[in-house]
Amino acid sequence: MRTLDPTEAVARARAGDRLALSRLISAVEERSAVAEEIGRLVPPGRAHVIGITGAPGVGKSTTTAALIEEWRSRGRTVAVVAVDPSSPFTGGALLGDRVRMEVHSTDPGVYIRSMAARGQLGGLAAATPAAVGLLSGLGFDIIVVETVGVGQSEVDIVRYADTVLILQAPGMGDRIQATKAGLLEIGDVFAVNKSDRPGANLTKRELGAMIAAKPLTAGQWRPPVVPVVATQGEGVADLVDLLDAHQDWAANSGSARIRRTERAAAEITALVLEVVQRGIRDREAELSALAARVAEGSLGASEAARLLLPADRPVVP
Amino acid sequence: MRTLDPTEAVARARAGDRLALSRLISAVEERSAVAEEIGRLVPPGRAHVIGITGAPGVGKSTTTAALIEEWRSRGRTVAVVAVDPSSPFTGGALLGDRVRMEVHSTDPGVYIRSMAARGQLGGLAAATPAAVGLLSGLGFDIIVVETVGVGQSEVDIVRYADTVLILQAPGMGDRIQATKAGLLEIGDVFAVNKSDRPGANLTKRELGAMIAAKPLTAGQWRPPVVPVVATQGEGVADLVDLLDAHQDWAANSGSARIRRTERAAAEITALVLEVVQRGIRDREAELSALAARVAEGSLGASEAARLLLPADRPVVP
Repeated sequence: MRTLDPTEAVARARAGDRLALSRLISAVEERSAVAEEIGRLVPPGRAHVIGITGAPGVGKSTTTAALIEEWRSRGRTVAVVAVDPSSPFTGGALLGDRVRMEVHSTDPGVYIRSMAARGQLGGLAAATPAAVGLLSGLGFDIIVVETVGVGQSEVDIVRYADTVLILQAPGMGDRIQATKAGLLEIGDVFAVNKSDRPGANLTKRELGAMIAAKPLTAGQWRPPVVPVVATQGEGVADLVDLLDAHQDWAANSGSARIRRTERAAAEITALVLEVVQRGIRDREAELSALAARVAEGSLGASEAARLLLPADRPVVP
Repeated sequence: MRTLDPTEAVARARAGDRLALSRLISAVEERSAVAEEIGRLVPPGRAHVIGITGAPGVGKSTTTAALIEEWRSRGRTVAVVAVDPSSPFTGGALLGDRVRMEVHSTDPGVYIRSMAARGQLGGLAAATPAAVGLLSGLGFDIIVVETVGVGQSEVDIVRYADTVLILQAPGMGDRIQATKAGLLEIGDVFAVNKSDRPGANLTKRELGAMIAAKPLTAGQWRPPVVPVVATQGEGVADLVDLLDAHQDWAANSGSARIRRTERAAAEITALVLEVVQRGIRDREAELSALAARVAEGSLGASEAARLLLPADRPVVP
């Protein structure tokens, strides 16, 4: 593959060239030499960044597909960044759902990108906002960041979106899954998918009661609970209206600016940690030797960490 | 609470004092001033560290409880370190399963510890091996590390156990959940729980076929698939035999030593990252100011990371 010319690639991506766009994202993700030049060429965008999460099986991909359809019917362009090992976007050709998503793959107003979750969530915590920033700067109206809402790191990736949508489904085991992993705390909008199934009303009621129990000050956003049947498109227009309403509220209340600053702080932190991890990888032989001593019990792990990273020897090159 | 006297606390913990043990683990987890002294007082142990993971709903807690019963009947002591937001150990009083576990809470040969997953998996990646090392050094025969097998960070926490047990259950959605998040790659033993339910044979067969498809060299361990009905204790004795068999194989093949070294390397890396994160927290005002500039678009995130952590200013104090 020939070297990426950032100026040319950005121009092509703006003109709708998907290959150019993908190569730009890869460059930004991998923090390649041209990443910062790309950052300068693409000014900050104004996309509405929507984080979507929920336990496996609630229907994240189906709901995302239904949302894309609704947004497209309203003339908006959509990019999806999937950071979810159980997603058909990232999970290979395992799930039948993939077919459903491919309907959108020929639409020039839709772009789908899966982030390689292999090994390093620290890296993803930095790579995801970088990809989102680029897609926003290139003019997408809506950017969906999809993760599975179980691991803390995955939850942290979506929590800094402008609007956080938590998906639930009835009959997924005892009680509301949102109470696990702190999803109740981070949700701006809740959707109960598969609302035509038994138990959906109970799920909706329990969720509503939990949200109502949270103390709110005047003017704060009270997260709504929307019943949805994503496979039929039912409730999806309402859901889109509520996501819009949250965006408006956040812009007017100043909450949007605070969330964007928190997102930037998380991204900067992730970048620093990534640099340090790279530094550790560069000292692999040293690390192995220290690890062998820790494993045999002749050295403490904390002592080994100090030996690997002494105070007078900065990790950042 | 009065200051922890490490020598006294270790003596008390060895004598079966649970409060002393809990305080020692907290000290090690929080990397308090006495943590290294505790490390010196407690020599490396010889516990069999077993990582247990699987998707929410497969019955991790019920299976762990059944395993504890079987191990106890064989005269072995067991410590459980639960790092699972969906576990009754960590998930508060939400699940009825909790009652089942409390049966063991009065048994002096069983110790259950939940790790606070709030916020920082980086921290947990360091705190979990520290707690495991301490429990091993204090003489527990078996240490179970339980996580929910969805997030990459959670999977990384169990993958370095001496033996990794992956739990599956029939009818949990399309295909085998183990294929997601790389669980198939890290499992040493697979158990299909709820094997009295429809579809259990299919799950077992599919899982067996996937394992059989993995290329193995001579002398390598071929992960077995065990049907279990944890609520009835069915298959649990077989499961314990197979976990033992893997331990024997690993010890004889040299694989155990390699795994322990990898675990130490992961712990050292996590400790370094933790120190760096602490350094970033100490510069909160600086980070906020940089984040505000990144959010408004006047500064790139990479540039901000460099300003926060310049090469001539080491993060480690």
